[in-house]
Amino acid sequence: MTQTLLLLPGDGIGPEVTAEVRRVAAALTPDLTIEERDFGGRSYDLHGAPITDEAVAAALASDAVLMGAVGGPKWAGVERLKRPEMGLLRLRKEMDVYANLRPALCFDALADASSLKREVVAGLDIMIVRELTGGVYFGEPRGVETLSDGQKRGFDTQVYTTSEIERVSRVAFELARGRRNKVTSAEKSNVMESGLLWREVVTDLHRREYADVELEHMLADNAAMQLVRRPSQFDVLLTDNLFGDILSDAAAQLTGSLGMLPSAALGAAGKPGLYEPIHGSAPDIAGQGLANPLAAILSFEMALRWSLGRAGEADRLFAAVEAALAAGARTRDIGGGLTTAQMGDAVLAAL
Amino acid sequence: MTQTLLLLPGDGIGPEVTAEVRRVAAALTPDLTIEERDFGGRSYDLHGAPITDEAVAAALASDAVLMGAVGGPKWAGVERLKRPEMGLLRLRKEMDVYANLRPALCFDALADASSLKREVVAGLDIMIVRELTGGVYFGEPRGVETLSDGQKRGFDTQVYTTSEIERVSRVAFELARGRRNKVTSAEKSNVMESGLLWREVVTDLHRREYADVELEHMLADNAAMQLVRRPSQFDVLLTDNLFGDILSDAAAQLTGSLGMLPSAALGAAGKPGLYEPIHGSAPDIAGQGLANPLAAILSFEMALRWSLGRAGEADRLFAAVEAALAAGARTRDIGGGLTTAQMGDAVLAAL
Ligand SMILES: CC(C)[C@H](C(=O)O)[C@@H](O)C(=O)O
Ligand SMILES: CC(C)[C@H](C(=O)O)[C@@H](O)C(=O)O
Repeated sequence: MTQTLLLLPGDGIGPEVTAEVRRVAAALTPDLTIEERDFGGRSYDLHGAPITDEAVAAALASDAVLMGAVGGPKWAGVERLKRPEMGLLRLRKEMDVYANLRPALCFDALADASSLKREVVAGLDIMIVRELTGGVYFGEPRGVETLSDGQKRGFDTQVYTTSEIERVSRVAFELARGRRNKVTSAEKSNVMESGLLWREVVTDLHRREYADVELEHMLADNAAMQLVRRPSQFDVLLTDNLFGDILSDAAAQLTGSLGMLPSAALGAAGKPGLYEPIHGSAPDIAGQGLANPLAAILSFEMALRWSLGRAGEADRLFAAVEAALAAGARTRDIGGGLTTAQMGDAVLAAL
Repeated sequence: MTQTLLLLPGDGIGPEVTAEVRRVAAALTPDLTIEERDFGGRSYDLHGAPITDEAVAAALASDAVLMGAVGGPKWAGVERLKRPEMGLLRLRKEMDVYANLRPALCFDALADASSLKREVVAGLDIMIVRELTGGVYFGEPRGVETLSDGQKRGFDTQVYTTSEIERVSRVAFELARGRRNKVTSAEKSNVMESGLLWREVVTDLHRREYADVELEHMLADNAAMQLVRRPSQFDVLLTDNLFGDILSDAAAQLTGSLGMLPSAALGAAGKPGLYEPIHGSAPDIAGQGLANPLAAILSFEMALRWSLGRAGEADRLFAAVEAALAAGARTRDIGGGLTTAQMGDAVLAAL
């Protein structure tokens, strides 16, 4: 039975970095079928929507989806529901990939690239588990209305149900068991009702099924502080969609490895996962061969591990990336001069 | 006409640090009348509410309010609306102090105390302007309801109107003019309707009245990243209530000066401001004379400057704090052995 990886190169540096994934896949997993669809701004330009129904269907029919990046200033004037980012939100929702795994990993070779002191970040290995298909990203009602006095009123709904919180928490607890056995759950239960429910459901699930895992609750503002102060205190950091968006970006930046960090969005067992580099479309350097393809390549590594059942190949690929870095391979973002393709070459050589 | 400062010592280390403010005020501004009320958990214990109507009235009748800190594990089981934090939210709302000024300042003497590299934080001086009386903190409807299948659903409303956004933005632009003339406005306009309105209103106000100030829009997740990566790119950072809560805590921690940072919450001209240290009630060290009183003392400095029209005394007090630090005065949180009162002594000696 052949497996299919759907590539969604998207915008900006997306096509460049996913091209390197194609090369790695050809060498490492030649039996894997690779398909490709337009996505984001490119899809809007060509098809009038940031993702087409056909592309969504292809994603749902695949074994894993790997995207590059979406968006850019070119589409700033596009009406909101047709913007590139909306393609991504629709895809997350339709694939029902509710658990977003975002490792914040400090590669030893790069510990000096961080703005934090080496001793604070060396060896850092945090796994952020962000709820990805609920919360204020999708809550209704939402909108901008004009009041009788001519003022406008913009509103959004932050909302979570017991089962939404439970299923993503389960992922966090399971991951912790294979790591350092600790989950920190972040919310603002002191000011938000959804945060109050979040804390209650996590506490309850922990008591019923995961009492062997250490559980800590932390207010989200304090979590932002603690991430900066002493990030090594975290193992698995569990958050809702919005807090996860912010905290995971801060955590990724701590490690100085932003151009290198992958992510996985997972749904129910047996369903395809959605994999993407943490970095954005970087329109300023797009098309110049300057982008670091490692985040995309490591996203493929995660796809091999989490969706394609190919842990052996995933291990080989991870080791090849580490070896390439140890041998001094560096793109510009991490202090070197290699092009995107040359970094791909370095990984291929180490495979 | 005599001026009144209302002290709300509150919980945990609040009483200890505000006691030092009393001593400083006695020396620096002996004509200032100081009153005091119970607040937070203490008020709940004594009066059954985290703030009484009488205390609110006293706050509104004062020229400035200075609080210590509220909350602690002791009140974790208290029903939500009576928790210590709710006293603070009610006070902010009733005083209508919509603009929260939170400086993230790296004191030169402390640049090595940061987890960030000295060269990244030395000389850092960011002013965060956080909207404080709107957004998801106060939006209706909100609640936790039980669904027909027994599940619960927790929801909150994030909401902003044109005038709420405009008045706090005005504060940010005015402050920027007296600083490095740049405002960065952070929201998630790519996923939130309130964020879309936020960006529109800020852009509009800027074009109409503040075109001389440099304005930059940044998504909140990127702002969290950029704060860690290169914080010196910011001058004034303008945010809503929730993003400001998180970003200001991260920014404060960057500087390594967390125990030292004050804040001011301002309303309409002529109305009393609310001043508070950024740090919390720190129940773990409460009552031991270990807390750093400088954040509270610098909050008093802000009160002198912003509410009491005493810029001369404010300058003197700020210089005294700098001199005490330069002379090596350090409480435990910043690597020394002074008690709370000894740090107060050091400031008094330098006055
Ligand atoms: C592009 C945007 C909609 C997205 C988000 O906010 O989730 C991005 O910031 C991310 O974290 O993947
Ligand atoms: C205590 C809490 C309600 C408060 C807030 O969330 O605003 C605090 O974190 C702060 O930043 O002043």
